[in-house]
Amino acid sequence: MSTAIEKAAILVEALPYIKKFYGKTVVIKYGGHAMINNELKEAVLTDVVLMKYVGIQPVIVHGGGPEITGMLKRVGKESRFVDGLRVTDEETMEIVEMVLAGKINKDIVAQINRIGGRAVGLSGKDANLFQAVKKLHKIRTPEGREEMADIGFVGDISRVNPEIVATAIAEGYIPVVAPVAVGAAGESYNVNADYAAGRLAVALNADKLIILTDVEGIMADRSDPHSLISVLRVDEVPNLIKQGKIDGGMIPKVECCLDALAGGVKSTHILDGRVQHSILLEVFTDKGIGTMVEN
Amino acid sequence: MSTAIEKAAILVEALPYIKKFYGKTVVIKYGGHAMINNELKEAVLTDVVLMKYVGIQPVIVHGGGPEITGMLKRVGKESRFVDGLRVTDEETMEIVEMVLAGKINKDIVAQINRIGGRAVGLSGKDANLFQAVKKLHKIRTPEGREEMADIGFVGDISRVNPEIVATAIAEGYIPVVAPVAVGAAGESYNVNADYAAGRLAVALNADKLIILTDVEGIMADRSDPHSLISVLRVDEVPNLIKQGKIDGGMIPKVECCLDALAGGVKSTHILDGRVQHSILLEVFTDKGIGTMVEN
Amino acid sequence: MSTAIEKAAILVEALPYIKKFYGKTVVIKYGGHAMINNELKEAVLTDVVLMKYVGIQPVIVHGGGPEITGMLKRVGKESRFVDGLRVTDEETMEIVEMVLAGKINKDIVAQINRIGGRAVGLSGKDANLFQAVKKLHKIRTPEGREEMADIGFVGDISRVNPEIVATAIAEGYIPVVAPVAVGAAGESYNVNADYAAGRLAVALNADKLIILTDVEGIMADRSDPHSLISVLRVDEVPNLIKQGKIDGGMIPKVECCLDALAGGVKSTHILDGRVQHSILLEVFTDKGIGTMVEN
Amino acid sequence: MSTAIEKAAILVEALPYIKKFYGKTVVIKYGGHAMINNELKEAVLTDVVLMKYVGIQPVIVHGGGPEITGMLKRVGKESRFVDGLRVTDEETMEIVEMVLAGKINKDIVAQINRIGGRAVGLSGKDANLFQAVKKLHKIRTPEGREEMADIGFVGDISRVNPEIVATAIAEGYIPVVAPVAVGAAGESYNVNADYAAGRLAVALNADKLIILTDVEGIMADRSDPHSLISVLRVDEVPNLIKQGKIDGGMIPKVECCLDALAGGVKSTHILDGRVQHSILLEVFTDKGIGTMVEN
Amino acid sequence: MSTAIEKAAILVEALPYIKKFYGKTVVIKYGGHAMINNELKEAVLTDVVLMKYVGIQPVIVHGGGPEITGMLKRVGKESRFVDGLRVTDEETMEIVEMVLAGKINKDIVAQINRIGGRAVGLSGKDANLFQAVKKLHKIRTPEGREEMADIGFVGDISRVNPEIVATAIAEGYIPVVAPVAVGAAGESYNVNADYAAGRLAVALNADKLIILTDVEGIMADRSDPHSLISVLRVDEVPNLIKQGKIDGGMIPKVECCLDALAGGVKSTHILDGRVQHSILLEVFTDKGIGTMVEN
Amino acid sequence: MSTAIEKAAILVEALPYIKKFYGKTVVIKYGGHAMINNELKEAVLTDVVLMKYVGIQPVIVHGGGPEITGMLKRVGKESRFVDGLRVTDEETMEIVEMVLAGKINKDIVAQINRIGGRAVGLSGKDANLFQAVKKLHKIRTPEGREEMADIGFVGDISRVNPEIVATAIAEGYIPVVAPVAVGAAGESYNVNADYAAGRLAVALNADKLIILTDVEGIMADRSDPHSLISVLRVDEVPNLIKQGKIDGGMIPKVECCLDALAGGVKSTHILDGRVQHSILLEVFTDKGIGTMVEN
Repeated sequence: MSTAIEKAAILVEALPYIKKFYGKTVVIKYGGHAMINNELKEAVLTDVVLMKYVGIQPVIVHGGGPEITGMLKRVGKESRFVDGLRVTDEETMEIVEMVLAGKINKDIVAQINRIGGRAVGLSGKDANLFQAVKKLHKIRTPEGREEMADIGFVGDISRVNPEIVATAIAEGYIPVVAPVAVGAAGESYNVNADYAAGRLAVALNADKLIILTDVEGIMADRSDPHSLISVLRVDEVPNLIKQGKIDGGMIPKVECCLDALAGGVKSTHILDGRVQHSILLEVFTDKGIGTMVEN
Repeated sequence: MSTAIEKAAILVEALPYIKKFYGKTVVIKYGGHAMINNELKEAVLTDVVLMKYVGIQPVIVHGGGPEITGMLKRVGKESRFVDGLRVTDEETMEIVEMVLAGKINKDIVAQINRIGGRAVGLSGKDANLFQAVKKLHKIRTPEGREEMADIGFVGDISRVNPEIVATAIAEGYIPVVAPVAVGAAGESYNVNADYAAGRLAVALNADKLIILTDVEGIMADRSDPHSLISVLRVDEVPNLIKQGKIDGGMIPKVECCLDALAGGVKSTHILDGRVQHSILLEVFTDKGIGTMVEN
Repeated sequence: MSTAIEKAAILVEALPYIKKFYGKTVVIKYGGHAMINNELKEAVLTDVVLMKYVGIQPVIVHGGGPEITGMLKRVGKESRFVDGLRVTDEETMEIVEMVLAGKINKDIVAQINRIGGRAVGLSGKDANLFQAVKKLHKIRTPEGREEMADIGFVGDISRVNPEIVATAIAEGYIPVVAPVAVGAAGESYNVNADYAAGRLAVALNADKLIILTDVEGIMADRSDPHSLISVLRVDEVPNLIKQGKIDGGMIPKVECCLDALAGGVKSTHILDGRVQHSILLEVFTDKGIGTMVEN
Repeated sequence: MSTAIEKAAILVEALPYIKKFYGKTVVIKYGGHAMINNELKEAVLTDVVLMKYVGIQPVIVHGGGPEITGMLKRVGKESRFVDGLRVTDEETMEIVEMVLAGKINKDIVAQINRIGGRAVGLSGKDANLFQAVKKLHKIRTPEGREEMADIGFVGDISRVNPEIVATAIAEGYIPVVAPVAVGAAGESYNVNADYAAGRLAVALNADKLIILTDVEGIMADRSDPHSLISVLRVDEVPNLIKQGKIDGGMIPKVECCLDALAGGVKSTHILDGRVQHSILLEVFTDKGIGTMVEN
Repeated sequence: MSTAIEKAAILVEALPYIKKFYGKTVVIKYGGHAMINNELKEAVLTDVVLMKYVGIQPVIVHGGGPEITGMLKRVGKESRFVDGLRVTDEETMEIVEMVLAGKINKDIVAQINRIGGRAVGLSGKDANLFQAVKKLHKIRTPEGREEMADIGFVGDISRVNPEIVATAIAEGYIPVVAPVAVGAAGESYNVNADYAAGRLAVALNADKLIILTDVEGIMADRSDPHSLISVLRVDEVPNLIKQGKIDGGMIPKVECCLDALAGGVKSTHILDGRVQHSILLEVFTDKGIGTMVEN
Repeated sequence: MSTAIEKAAILVEALPYIKKFYGKTVVIKYGGHAMINNELKEAVLTDVVLMKYVGIQPVIVHGGGPEITGMLKRVGKESRFVDGLRVTDEETMEIVEMVLAGKINKDIVAQINRIGGRAVGLSGKDANLFQAVKKLHKIRTPEGREEMADIGFVGDISRVNPEIVATAIAEGYIPVVAPVAVGAAGESYNVNADYAAGRLAVALNADKLIILTDVEGIMADRSDPHSLISVLRVDEVPNLIKQGKIDGGMIPKVECCLDALAGGVKSTHILDGRVQHSILLEVFTDKGIGTMVEN
């Protein structure tokens, strides 16, 4: 019995957090390790279902990652990258979209439904959720000249029509969104999933944006594993970038947070997706997980 | 961090139970020790608020107990009992109603609101929730004759009008109900709180009736503290009464359960209100607390 | 037949007034003689039920008066007053709340229901309707110094949450409100009923505030019973106070009216509760009853 | 003041009747003297507006009478009658419809609106409210043979589509209906107004059908003005017809009542439209006006 | 089969126009030849029904024309005109209203219902749709003095209460409105139908106002049948009037358009009602029919 | 102008059909040539958008066809068939699902949105739309024994949860559904698209099921191109199968029709998808396209 009572006490501890987020929308960028490791995946999706049941409105925007590369390999398509951006010709885009919207998306949906939620998978094409224009990417030639590189069907989101997502939320579903966007002629574009999550959070007037990553968060001193920055104010960011403490793939993630905050999202979080139930810990406990970027 | 993760795991364990009771109505008869001891009281009301937040519709029907006797004493009114029923003259009824509807009820409401719920206190007079007729009570005289005893304003509920409670639930409130009923001329009647809870559960088409008591449950052998009967089938009850294993104040409680089951309530529970968070344990874990009486 | 026709004519005469107030909210402070005398009580509550049926939205805020003093006496508690304010220790507050919320309130509810309305009793604790802070009361010591007097659980309303009252109105009920408020820790406060009525009228965006009193209204010359001031403009009030024509217990009532008018209530009325059906006369006829205070 | 109080008392006396009919639909066949005399007309329409304000749902079906004959005369059209039915050729029907739907109907609407109601005029053509087929009328020739007489555009209602009336009621309007019906090819038919009122009452599931006439009601002995039959049971009707106590134009009116009762209308009334406010007296007092025909 | 496919292609061609006007309100002034010729009438009303089915919200305001004159003649009433305005004494007004609201209106309603729409006929008296004041008309006497001419019950619309029309639209009906207005005492006024249509379009926040006429549109050169002005900008109107290219009965029609445009209507059209399906051609094709007056 | 008028006449001709199907649900199995040929594709999807605009509720269930085989080839996966059923191992199912839900589905959605509809793509996994169990397939071995063949992830639909489709319809979207179903453990199953369409039509209580094929319909005599059977009664089917007039791939299509009719769908149609706008012709004209199978 005593363990039972301890369990009850822990449920009770969650009450203030449940109250705090009751009815609020939380957009979760789901990617990285947490999408590959089965145990972590089960934990993330269970967290999401639990959130829905206790009155929070979670929305998932997922990435693609290794599965895209795997499928491209299977069809004998080599990936070429320019400045870290995949050059996406028509055939590549076809594979990218199939993997994102036809495999990863539907797999997440099926797992959520199995756990007991009611999920609906959407891509940015559905009801024109994400409209995009071709990304203009400047490169510097070996000779030092700037020129435009054609990186194919990589897009910048030009407009978000969140009605279909809002409808799904209102009808009790958990929307799961693939980061594919649609162009003016109905063509597909590959868009950055972090950015798509941030834009959607703004369009939905979300309370919270959570970006799952494969790092602990932003560190004050990378050689010191105890130097995690728990709270980062928007105006501290430029200095940290200058000092190189925020660099590489973390820069666009932090920029997503800044954009979301500027667009009215109340708080943004860069969480370690490798920690089990990191979302639950962030939302339902006082324990500082990862880095919160705030105004 | 490890403790945090354990906590998350416990929250996750509650998910199947949250799913199971999502949207269901649970009527709780609140009384006894759990209403006097401050720590237990905090625990019970927190459980109720938590239930509301995770999508369950709790309704409280409270008893009176020692506070009524205390107030009667303060005004110099002696309590007389016939077969365990308080003889309730007009002056006594006035005190009873004031204590139930004006003190205990409003105190529970205020505590729930402080914890974070939104409670509304009602008595059976509000919107004619509980209509009653004078209770007819037969006694046996010392000479052995049967005759009717006038025990005053003690009533039997003749009709339940649950609309006001249903409205309060639908509007997001936690209804807290005092067991006072109204007669045809607007006069007040004292009604048994267990019975009021059972009748209300039926009228609301509730899923569950929980009666908090000051015992562990129904025991197969009272000398053996490990002989708790976890599940009791309706057809086993008559024998247990005959054997004296259900007796005294437990008989009307069990009868309330039988009535509620007959009226369509899915399950009924006699719980030990002295155990902290006993309601939460009953609803959110597999652990058998108290005795469930079922069809 | 001729009498019948005369009766019809009188019903028809009421039509313009019914039209005028159709759908409007009217808050009535109910107290004094009209609450003690049974015939007047029946008349007042019948007026209220009639108002509801003809499309007006009446809300009652009642006082306490002699019943509180009576009950305090019965428990051997002496009442102490400072500047007309009852010094309210914890035990006194307990009695005050029980009488207001458990006796007077529920009695009014039962009588309205008997007459054919559908009433719901509320106290300021329900859904945090009236939140209060402890009243700071300055007194002048015999030596002439100003100091704070601790008058106990006497509160000033700091916030009104009228949702529960609005819900009750929308669902077709007549809300009956006891002037008890709740503090930050869930403790009870005694608040002035006139003031509570005025604040509630403002929060509900009411059309009319009616204060039932035991005087005819405000008199231009108290020695002349025919000098009733039928209409009093807000800007005339200061002079009348200076001249002593508004004094004593009438001052706070007039101040309530001024506050309500400042808060957007369209008209306020100080009526003689000793006149049968004075509310009906005020609302449904041209006959000037009492004093209207208006902008 | 005393008169004012008497007036209040009369308003209060109406309360039980207001309660009784709250939300109920009452269909009124309006015709005869009450439509010609200006004072009576004002009284009838005021009664209707008052009913609406106190929560009753009145619907008016009006007749035509002298105005039709007047207009036919003005265009030099002679009226021919067969067994009391106007032979209605196309030109006559045109005049009948214009007078009913274009003059009388709109005039009633305008008067109700002036008094303070919100009326909408409809004919049976609007939204196909009344669909009709040509009336088959048998006559006996002077030679004693039965044959069909062509009486033109006189119709029998074959179907009632009450949605437009129900919508008008739900939106707060008082529907005023002209007894014109539409045939399969869009042609107009003259239909009996009593019968149209009865059929509409059934289709609307009305509580009451009131037929205004120019007689006091049904008399047990026509030579004795005090022999009014206040209540007539359905099974007493055949005998009264046999005895000639119900005859002439009263027979179809009574038949309308029987049809309406058979169709589920709760009570039907034949009232004297020459008495001012006879509707109000019927609905709001105990005074027996006219004859009630009931099951 | 080939013809069938061509037909399909034509349906498909209409799609962009259907999309464009989906959910928009279009007010049509229906009058002239299109109301007299049976084939044209069938075509106009079919167009209106089709519009309703494809998601447009058509509202008809009809004129009177020859039928009024005809009926006046039949009752031996001579029409007198002052500056083109019919001098409308009480008897004339009675006839005008009967013909408009009782004959033409109901006939249009019946035809629409026969074709498959659900029409409801209204006059400006219904729910006080059009309120009017007596028109003040100045004339110049033969002696050259200006003086007021009493032209009787000719009114200027002083207020539009469009709720009844909006309700009818929302409930799926096609409102058909007769240009009769109501004065303060319930009296009827004859109002200009073009003007009524324009005012109603503004009050309904309509997208389009269409005025059916008996001319091709506004011509740049009346001697040249090919000189139709397809699009006329508001600021070009004064010049065209000065040049006499817009004159006579066309001036008030153009003024209606200007008023409607000033009141927020998006586009206004003067169409040739003598062309079959001219409304359909205007709404569903690119073909320029008549003259569009726009900002 | 004359052509314009002819066009108008054709629009008007469609009116009776628009009326007939207003508000009705039509499920379209989209596959074969009409999905490959760009012109036909544009025509089909335009038809669907037009249907939506004129008040019909179209739902598309699409097939896969050559694109699946193409992608399997690209990844070097050979397709094996047993009795015409593709043996679907896990890797094959992954490709099948990606192509169906990630490519074809989203492409149809994008094209509909481009044409002006608002489409949402769904697979049977979304909100558990199609639940399936593994298909049990018996084969006859070369030795003549019957045994079960494991054909992998080919499923039979065991349950349809149409709520997500119904919600999408109600919110104004055109649902586009991929024939993928979900098993108890969240695994994917390939299901027959015709059958999925039929089952969905029943679950949605659809009025019409349309199956687009690559043949003209069912022929009485295959050598005679003019022998199309326009209407086929359910009870004629067995004989036609026996006579071999319905055989091969047509048998399951006809069975789908029979199942749908048995489940309450009003009419079912086997249309020639190679004819442009064949859906429009079927729905909006009298012209017999393909074969209607009916009760």
